[in-house]
Amino acid sequence: MKLKVKNFNWLAGRPVVVLNEQAAKKLNVFVNDRIKISKPKKVYAIVDIFSKLVSKNQIGLSHELSKILEVKNGAEVEVSSSEISEASYLIKKKIDGKTLTGEELNLIISEIVENNLTEAEIAFFTAAQKLNKMNLEETINLTKAMVKTGARLKFKGKYLADKHCIGGIAGNRTTPIVIAICAAAGLTLPKTSSRAITSAAGTADVIETIANVELSLKEIKKVVHKTGACLAWGGSLGLAPSDDKIIHVERMLNLDIEPQLLASIMSKKIAAGAKHIIIDIPCGKGSKIKTLDKAKKLGDKFKKIAKRFNLKLKVVYTDGTQPIGNGAGPVLEMIDILQVLQNKGPKDLRDKSLYLSIELIKLCGIKNAKEKAEEALASGKAYEKFKEIVNAQNGTNDFDERVKNLQPAKFKKTIKAKKSGTITEISNKGINSICRILGTPETISAGVYLHNHVGKITKKEPLVTLYAESKSKMKDALKFIKKFKPIKII
Amino acid sequence: MKLKVKNFNWLAGRPVVVLNEQAAKKLNVFVNDRIKISKPKKVYAIVDIFSKLVSKNQIGLSHELSKILEVKNGAEVEVSSSEISEASYLIKKKIDGKTLTGEELNLIISEIVENNLTEAEIAFFTAAQKLNKMNLEETINLTKAMVKTGARLKFKGKYLADKHCIGGIAGNRTTPIVIAICAAAGLTLPKTSSRAITSAAGTADVIETIANVELSLKEIKKVVHKTGACLAWGGSLGLAPSDDKIIHVERMLNLDIEPQLLASIMSKKIAAGAKHIIIDIPCGKGSKIKTLDKAKKLGDKFKKIAKRFNLKLKVVYTDGTQPIGNGAGPVLEMIDILQVLQNKGPKDLRDKSLYLSIELIKLCGIKNAKEKAEEALASGKAYEKFKEIVNAQNGTNDFDERVKNLQPAKFKKTIKAKKSGTITEISNKGINSICRILGTPETISAGVYLHNHVGKITKKEPLVTLYAESKSKMKDALKFIKKFKPIKII
Repeated sequence: MKLKVKNFNWLAGRPVVVLNEQAAKKLNVFVNDRIKISKPKKVYAIVDIFSKLVSKNQIGLSHELSKILEVKNGAEVEVSSSEISEASYLIKKKIDGKTLTGEELNLIISEIVENNLTEAEIAFFTAAQKLNKMNLEETINLTKAMVKTGARLKFKGKYLADKHCIGGIAGNRTTPIVIAICAAAGLTLPKTSSRAITSAAGTADVIETIANVELSLKEIKKVVHKTGACLAWGGSLGLAPSDDKIIHVERMLNLDIEPQLLASIMSKKIAAGAKHIIIDIPCGKGSKIKTLDKAKKLGDKFKKIAKRFNLKLKVVYTDGTQPIGNGAGPVLEMIDILQVLQNKGPKDLRDKSLYLSIELIKLCGIKNAKEKAEEALASGKAYEKFKEIVNAQNGTNDFDERVKNLQPAKFKKTIKAKKSGTITEISNKGINSICRILGTPETISAGVYLHNHVGKITKKEPLVTLYAESKSKMKDALKFIKKFKPIKII
Repeated sequence: MKLKVKNFNWLAGRPVVVLNEQAAKKLNVFVNDRIKISKPKKVYAIVDIFSKLVSKNQIGLSHELSKILEVKNGAEVEVSSSEISEASYLIKKKIDGKTLTGEELNLIISEIVENNLTEAEIAFFTAAQKLNKMNLEETINLTKAMVKTGARLKFKGKYLADKHCIGGIAGNRTTPIVIAICAAAGLTLPKTSSRAITSAAGTADVIETIANVELSLKEIKKVVHKTGACLAWGGSLGLAPSDDKIIHVERMLNLDIEPQLLASIMSKKIAAGAKHIIIDIPCGKGSKIKTLDKAKKLGDKFKKIAKRFNLKLKVVYTDGTQPIGNGAGPVLEMIDILQVLQNKGPKDLRDKSLYLSIELIKLCGIKNAKEKAEEALASGKAYEKFKEIVNAQNGTNDFDERVKNLQPAKFKKTIKAKKSGTITEISNKGINSICRILGTPETISAGVYLHNHVGKITKKEPLVTLYAESKSKMKDALKFIKKFKPIKII
């Protein structure tokens, strides 16, 4: 039946429509049932009934649906009751321990994209992946399905490259440095990154301290065309859009689901058009992957998937036992990055970034990769390239001014070593937690500055400086440190 | 902070509140976050933001929440942002394959009851139960938690009894007959039943053809006090209220989760105050449990749980290979029941009901159970008892009139055997599906009447008569029969 749209500025957190009781009866749907809107776009929605808000000829759209449908008030949409989702039978099949075919995964993923699965059904799907595992073939098919249901970027150029780190390490903001070095060395890098989930900051949060990261696909093309690279937020681009919905559900329990992790990363790289990819897997005590052995098992899966998609991919296994760089928090990390790009700043961050850059340039089949990367950094070309990218993303020329405005938060507190000895452990989780307590990533100027890494320390030497915009947050962070002792000295 | 209630007659299908953007900001919550309402009752709700509907001092309640809170427009409620649910960590623990303690299960179940877990989190919980299993101790603790978080009924009397069938068999409406016989024999049976989920009718749907089944706890007490038994709908009584929410999620994928099934059944029996319980597990091809071996494994778990709760419980394993009784559908089943209670009607239904009654009376430690049950039925005392219960539930004396008004649907169609031979199979699922197509349980007069069960049949003998209130439904049912042949003759 046809109903007239009424757009409500109503944030429901899910694609909901409001129907009048009479319209619901006519459609033979009840609350929480799903309807299909087939025109102007095929999309599914959940039914709320709220007769005071809409007449029997109207359909009220939540903000989430208004955004998808983009129709004006009064415009007609074609609405019908939705058949029972076939995908839910397939999810049950996976729960029952069976293997899903490519076609079946396509159906599940496209129904996720079209909103025809509830969050509970997505939870069953991810739980089944976690507990019944997925074989390589399924993981590849899942990746394909995730690419297929989203937008894609296409670039010309021989050296289309990307990097990815599976995360978990505080600081460790190598991406902007690697992108700057590699772009200066002639690679094309349409890089998209995420915002923080549980960490102090995501790459997108850090870049956002000086550049606009919310680019459209068209803007990304323009920036990459102009500068050879970009540092955009991947969130709203629609590359592998099923991923956001799945991650939203996984995050409720903070689950790490391997096939989903593999498909999520690989589908986004494929959709962004990369052909040469470096995957950084930090491992060791205190990181996501505790042993090199486990890291290699995961790495092998990345390689196998890449092979099937005809991509050149190299996995590097790096030290994940302590934070990388000194700053943790958007502004503090950006300050580290700018320092490294100017041949100053934390050596560990510089070394790791250079190492990743060399590997990526090498992977593209370019000779003298080491010399090229080192030269790009030492000569200041990488810094110039970074400036160029930031200015292109902002559409301005005020890079230097923006850099000048980068200031850590106004309240600071330095904690010193109570005794001489050896720092044996700096907990990544601990540093991330302190940052969150101090207000990151929302408060971009908050965070932790590490004066020392694992190694010798003398009494009264500074360990960390905390930055916050509120005294109460500072107090909470100090309490946390006292309780959990994220830095161990013996 | 305090907010003023605005009750909306808004069916959202979940406990949602509408906040003004400013109130949300002040509470530091965003869409899909949870808030805690601590006064007048502790309950959690999901946040929608819809500034046009409420002012910054107001909170809009969905129908679901209005029902729980029972506060008037303009009344103040105390609202705060909700801490991250600890239960979600515990669910993750179960996903990770660990065992949950009694205390941990208490926390999960009470957060389910208080709405502090999303449907996706409940899905993770049930998936973890399904895939990582639960040991006996966990199942017992789950049962305890489910009882603890709900209402309880208490009755005096030596012979507090109940029966339960795990379902899956078309027709098979033994409950009203067993209750009538056993109550006539002196047992006390505060029986609550469910409505149909996927079958042609639930016991509550069948009873509702002549009696009010939506009783309050107080009314149940009154009816049981007066007649020794009741036949109420268990749905809104609040006995083990977590169950409804869990079942709602399980049903999305039509999952059967054993620990949940055990805890669900046992918690309701315990909450209803039963001390002697018969569990009927139909088994064999075409039923939920395919083999006697599997049925016994399940039965043993019932017994072990009962032992821990100090209950007398007997499991009977019955023939689940074909429908029991002739009618399937609310009115048709009630007609069968009334016939049996008047010593007429389908022999299989009579025999099974009598058998269950004898076992239950025996379980109570009453001597000469067989004679007592047979006498109650043959003498008409069971029929009188049934009449008494129905009249008590209705608060009237019009039983006979109600019986007279029981009429199958106006369109009927009899299907006859095309050849002589043997009926080898009557599919329970098939008969249930035909009933649903014909309109049950909503159309109480619709359904299927089986003229013959498995065994010899002569050409042109009637097999089934279909009843429907609409010609198009009749047509659809005939199509279904043609396609799926639920009755096999060789």
